Amino acid sequence: MPTAHEDARRVADRVERFVRDIVIPYEDDPRRGPHGPEESLVDELRDLAREAGVMTPHIRQDGSHLTQRETALVLEKTGLSPLGPAACNTAAPDEGNMLLLGRAASPEQKARFLDPLVSGHARSAFFMTEPAELGGAGSDPSMLQCRAEPSGNGWRINGEKTFITGADGAKVGLVMAKAEAGACLFLVDLPDPAIRIDGVLDTMDGTMPGGHCRITIDDLFVPADRILGEPGDGFRLAQIRLAPARLSHCMRWLGLGVRAQEQALDYACRRQAFGRALIDHEGVGFMLAENQIELQQCRLMIDWCAADLDAGNNGNVPSSMTKVAVSEALFRVADRCVQAMGGQGVCDTNIPAQLFRETRCFRVYDGPTEVHKWSLAKKLKKGWTEANA
Amino acid sequence: MPTAHEDARRVADRVERFVRDIVIPYEDDPRRGPHGPEESLVDELRDLAREAGVMTPHIRQDGSHLTQRETALVLEKTGLSPLGPAACNTAAPDEGNMLLLGRAASPEQKARFLDPLVSGHARSAFFMTEPAELGGAGSDPSMLQCRAEPSGNGWRINGEKTFITGADGAKVGLVMAKAEAGACLFLVDLPDPAIRIDGVLDTMDGTMPGGHCRITIDDLFVPADRILGEPGDGFRLAQIRLAPARLSHCMRWLGLGVRAQEQALDYACRRQAFGRALIDHEGVGFMLAENQIELQQCRLMIDWCAADLDAGNNGNVPSSMTKVAVSEALFRVADRCVQAMGGQGVCDTNIPAQLFRETRCFRVYDGPTEVHKWSLAKKLKKGWTEANA
Amino acid sequence: MPTAHEDARRVADRVERFVRDIVIPYEDDPRRGPHGPEESLVDELRDLAREAGVMTPHIRQDGSHLTQRETALVLEKTGLSPLGPAACNTAAPDEGNMLLLGRAASPEQKARFLDPLVSGHARSAFFMTEPAELGGAGSDPSMLQCRAEPSGNGWRINGEKTFITGADGAKVGLVMAKAEAGACLFLVDLPDPAIRIDGVLDTMDGTMPGGHCRITIDDLFVPADRILGEPGDGFRLAQIRLAPARLSHCMRWLGLGVRAQEQALDYACRRQAFGRALIDHEGVGFMLAENQIELQQCRLMIDWCAADLDAGNNGNVPSSMTKVAVSEALFRVADRCVQAMGGQGVCDTNIPAQLFRETRCFRVYDGPTEVHKWSLAKKLKKGWTEANA
Amino acid sequence: MPTAHEDARRVADRVERFVRDIVIPYEDDPRRGPHGPEESLVDELRDLAREAGVMTPHIRQDGSHLTQRETALVLEKTGLSPLGPAACNTAAPDEGNMLLLGRAASPEQKARFLDPLVSGHARSAFFMTEPAELGGAGSDPSMLQCRAEPSGNGWRINGEKTFITGADGAKVGLVMAKAEAGACLFLVDLPDPAIRIDGVLDTMDGTMPGGHCRITIDDLFVPADRILGEPGDGFRLAQIRLAPARLSHCMRWLGLGVRAQEQALDYACRRQAFGRALIDHEGVGFMLAENQIELQQCRLMIDWCAADLDAGNNGNVPSSMTKVAVSEALFRVADRCVQAMGGQGVCDTNIPAQLFRETRCFRVYDGPTEVHKWSLAKKLKKGWTEANA
Repeated sequence: MPTAHEDARRVADRVERFVRDIVIPYEDDPRRGPHGPEESLVDELRDLAREAGVMTPHIRQDGSHLTQRETALVLEKTGLSPLGPAACNTAAPDEGNMLLLGRAASPEQKARFLDPLVSGHARSAFFMTEPAELGGAGSDPSMLQCRAEPSGNGWRINGEKTFITGADGAKVGLVMAKAEAGACLFLVDLPDPAIRIDGVLDTMDGTMPGGHCRITIDDLFVPADRILGEPGDGFRLAQIRLAPARLSHCMRWLGLGVRAQEQALDYACRRQAFGRALIDHEGVGFMLAENQIELQQCRLMIDWCAADLDAGNNGNVPSSMTKVAVSEALFRVADRCVQAMGGQGVCDTNIPAQLFRETRCFRVYDGPTEVHKWSLAKKLKKGWTEANA
Repeated sequence: MPTAHEDARRVADRVERFVRDIVIPYEDDPRRGPHGPEESLVDELRDLAREAGVMTPHIRQDGSHLTQRETALVLEKTGLSPLGPAACNTAAPDEGNMLLLGRAASPEQKARFLDPLVSGHARSAFFMTEPAELGGAGSDPSMLQCRAEPSGNGWRINGEKTFITGADGAKVGLVMAKAEAGACLFLVDLPDPAIRIDGVLDTMDGTMPGGHCRITIDDLFVPADRILGEPGDGFRLAQIRLAPARLSHCMRWLGLGVRAQEQALDYACRRQAFGRALIDHEGVGFMLAENQIELQQCRLMIDWCAADLDAGNNGNVPSSMTKVAVSEALFRVADRCVQAMGGQGVCDTNIPAQLFRETRCFRVYDGPTEVHKWSLAKKLKKGWTEANA
Repeated sequence: MPTAHEDARRVADRVERFVRDIVIPYEDDPRRGPHGPEESLVDELRDLAREAGVMTPHIRQDGSHLTQRETALVLEKTGLSPLGPAACNTAAPDEGNMLLLGRAASPEQKARFLDPLVSGHARSAFFMTEPAELGGAGSDPSMLQCRAEPSGNGWRINGEKTFITGADGAKVGLVMAKAEAGACLFLVDLPDPAIRIDGVLDTMDGTMPGGHCRITIDDLFVPADRILGEPGDGFRLAQIRLAPARLSHCMRWLGLGVRAQEQALDYACRRQAFGRALIDHEGVGFMLAENQIELQQCRLMIDWCAADLDAGNNGNVPSSMTKVAVSEALFRVADRCVQAMGGQGVCDTNIPAQLFRETRCFRVYDGPTEVHKWSLAKKLKKGWTEANA
Repeated sequence: MPTAHEDARRVADRVERFVRDIVIPYEDDPRRGPHGPEESLVDELRDLAREAGVMTPHIRQDGSHLTQRETALVLEKTGLSPLGPAACNTAAPDEGNMLLLGRAASPEQKARFLDPLVSGHARSAFFMTEPAELGGAGSDPSMLQCRAEPSGNGWRINGEKTFITGADGAKVGLVMAKAEAGACLFLVDLPDPAIRIDGVLDTMDGTMPGGHCRITIDDLFVPADRILGEPGDGFRLAQIRLAPARLSHCMRWLGLGVRAQEQALDYACRRQAFGRALIDHEGVGFMLAENQIELQQCRLMIDWCAADLDAGNNGNVPSSMTKVAVSEALFRVADRCVQAMGGQGVCDTNIPAQLFRETRCFRVYDGPTEVHKWSLAKKLKKGWTEANA
């Protein structure tokens, strides 16, 4: 009888075949768009994913999730193409939102908001980050300004948000706002005229459907039964998805890193210069060797953090460490692949340039590297203080 | 009486005012395009540049050029905006092509090909690099495959080229091809039906009018008097523009580096997080301090290399050293500005993201960093061998 | 019933207590010497280790070894002090030599050469590397010049060696020399008047008893039954110890990295500057956070490589990758600890300075980083070639 | 008639010949000692320097100094050997102390304290830094704890100092202590029984005569006329030497960087591995190319900062920028030379290892890199604030 882990490997293999055979040929589809694939492309790919049995592959029929270690095997494979996560429904922010709703939503909330996400018929957005110029919450959530006021049998929400991934086209929204009891998370049907998309940000990345949006929430009414958990639970609930969502970014982009390395290796083995194949020039060969090492390190960090989560911990420290290590390493991997491929490397048609853009953003998204280091230093001090009390 | 150098400073000041006051407001003009400003935008900006007396500011009325050290002062200022070089006619490849034609063209060739370039009414392209997949000349010019055959009172040229900057829309072409006597440089009027633009490459940068083009040259006829110099002179002539053109990239992008640092500094002084302005966080403040140091180092390297050229040397070694140092440093500067600005940093609407893309390409263009290091190592060995003979 | 792994953890705990409580107080013993502890200090520490039950802790009474993964747990703890490996008999080159003899020696050879090593009453040396100025074998073993000629019932060996770790004071020698059949490994009793120690090299590191020696082998006679394996087996046998020995360096120095981080953290939490504890300056706090991440990455790479060896593979590629990753990472960790401690950091009395010296050498020893990258690039090309055949 | 600058070049040439021909052969003199050359060696070298006309070569007979730009030419050459600065009397802290006394001492003070320094018959020490464990002044001078109390016709000083370079063997002391009026600088004859040398610190560097000392000042009496300037002038006076002394470190170590590169180049051109000279391996050749670039950048930064000082500015910002850039760059140069030379590189007998130790310390001495970045960030903020007032 196969172990669960072997089962996950089989899922991962099926996903890999799907992504390599079916998804990759779509990479030059004009519907990819500068800031994420258009809905019609996502829909088409998802139909193919259902056909191949790889829709939402990390969640089982009964709603249970693979372990994080198993999820890592699968999500890496969806990441082999920039279109893979959207196709297989393992993309941010849906992956994290599904996890959160699976753990914290009421049965009624699950039926209305979670089920269409899991089946891949809806996308979602998490309305958290706020504009810098208004002094809103960026890396520092305590600066949250969006307000929720009780109103009749529900709440009225007002505020501005930015970098709301996937908001354009999403059908499910999770909105963070501050009420008297503290931060709250509200579930909303989208689109809603009270949630205005002011624009899609002109960011360097471009794989997430719906892009990253600038939003105005103008007197949005939310019925009382659509609060997730209790008033004041907002930050606690956000913590549930925090570490796994952060880690799932690492998993997916590791897959794209593997693919970038494949392209760069192929180029370096074929292209001649100064009398030898590029790879036989140490200047290029060493870069690919460094990549091989760093990709392995990424995989090990992800597995380590995943095991920590699987052990029931909140994973905050391991996921901070892993996020920093993986985002910075994959950026270097991308940079070397670009350089190894020279003129071809700087072309957006090739995977290295795409990974380069994605990971440049990843170093900022989900907490910039510096915020994680700051938090790790605090933890180190706390540990020292306790040991020397 | 002002020295020539003071005069150049005054030109630089005038250029700076023009770029800051007139050009920068055009930065969100929709005609900028993903791979370079459209012709109508370039034309409009050039009319304004003529009005402000800053058209082709590094070449005097009599056709003489500022020294390289003086040119550095001026070109840095045109670089303060990604649109500045196109506006002031100091952009690549025109700047290098004008220099080459000024030194090597016959009076008739100058009248036909150089004059419209200097007046800013025409753009040019240098057809050198060839496709990797055909085993053509990339970083290694000895792999040149494009062929020129004598034909009647002239030549017939056939071949494929790629990364031909500015070809789309250029009126003047300099085409490198191999004849029996060796490499030759031909001057051609553009457009010409025998020079087919197969596409504009999807590169990460986007400031050069016309972008970088893929080209097929299909039986192009060039009259005998449109060869530059003599048959076989091609590589020697290319050397004339090599070091100055390489250096002028450094000058312009240094200007954009200065501007990126201004934006990042402004953001870091205004934006608060965790109870302080960002710049008061060492994690951010140190990045800006490092930028300040590296920008200064760039300026000093450029000045040093310029002085070497002004002394009449070919500048190959200093320009290799400077190109490596400046392109790599400005890339780091860009990267730090992006990181310091967080979510704003990864938006292409801001200068750091633009510099980040430009310098990523610059590390490959005009000889990747590795090719220059390879060449420098050869020079070191040669010096050692001679000293130990 | 405890698993073997739990058993190894208990051994590791016992070793840790011994090193922290007993060995560390010896760190300022004047007998440490500039290039390794003197014999009297080693003997004294080994008596204490026997008393504490931690002599040769990775080899069981019956001569069997802990698995590599288990060994990693134990050797990291011996590495907590620069004196720990010598005290517990887990130091290079003995650890690797014991492994090799355990696998390849005849029963008679084991009794004579291995047993006194395992009991900690003898040290050994591996005579492989040869002087650069003679064009001998350094990173490239094919350049081996030391010669073995048949002579009576044995061999006569002549040659020069350098960087022979621990030769001064060793009682057991493994000498690599080239015979007609190829490279051979010979076992010799030391000292021997035919093996002259010309000097101890003035290297930057200083933890290995006996230092690194320059040697002349002048007509050394070795009886026929003291060849290890068969004539021509030399390189194949060396491979047996290659990967595990390389990996054991990583294990030990990881322990010293942990200790350096402890010292730096302690200093940064106590020392005030500019109104705050050093660790509350991001410039310092971030360095310690980066260390925490890199130490974890080292541990994961070691465990991954150890698992590969435990699975019965030769571990060449994983150990190359791990050696590069760990030596470079620990050097950065050391460098940051030094910097965080300022003036204290550059003092050799503190662990960071010691780790800094050790890891600077480690980046060269057992194959410089560049040789491993070169070899990894070759493997990548081979893989590509096979996949594209 | 030669310009002053040409004159300085001639001095520099003479110094270079002296260092290369006379000083370098002393590099393996056993009197070099682990923490600085012994007095008898310094004396012997200084006699030779006088003979060669290169004693204190940056100060003219009339007591006037070369400009800083000229000084850079000369001090770089003294730095070609680790023994050069001590031999030619351009070493720290004497160089800075002579400069300070030349500007701020009274005629009587000059006669007593400066003249023997300039003639090279005495060495000096600057008693500023205080022990961390006492919360004394390290990078942050405001933490100064050493106290001066008025006493009869003079002062009584008590305190502890550390990292007092050259104190052991110095004849002239400059002691910083806090009186009621603020920080004061006192001139003292050394040795003095009230200034106890508790030990020489076990630092990684080893070129400065007398090493870096730990000191107790126990009721030292200083007559009233031996205060430099006025009570309370201490920090202002220290500023006079601050930037030039910092810069002179850069000048000297640049010279050693040049020499390390020479040794590494020589090794890489002679040593073969894997069928080629090391330099023909890009992995090595690129390192030497990078060094060539960084050495040039160091020279340009030094020249730029020197010009700023020569223009009469205090040079604080340029010298901070230069100190960070040069110390970090030379450390990388050293590290690459070490790596290029492999086993030879990690031997202290070779210059790369020596430069490696020296520059590791230099990154901490005279303000660690982080303190300079912190100060530069403050300056950037100040500039922004003023521009946006």
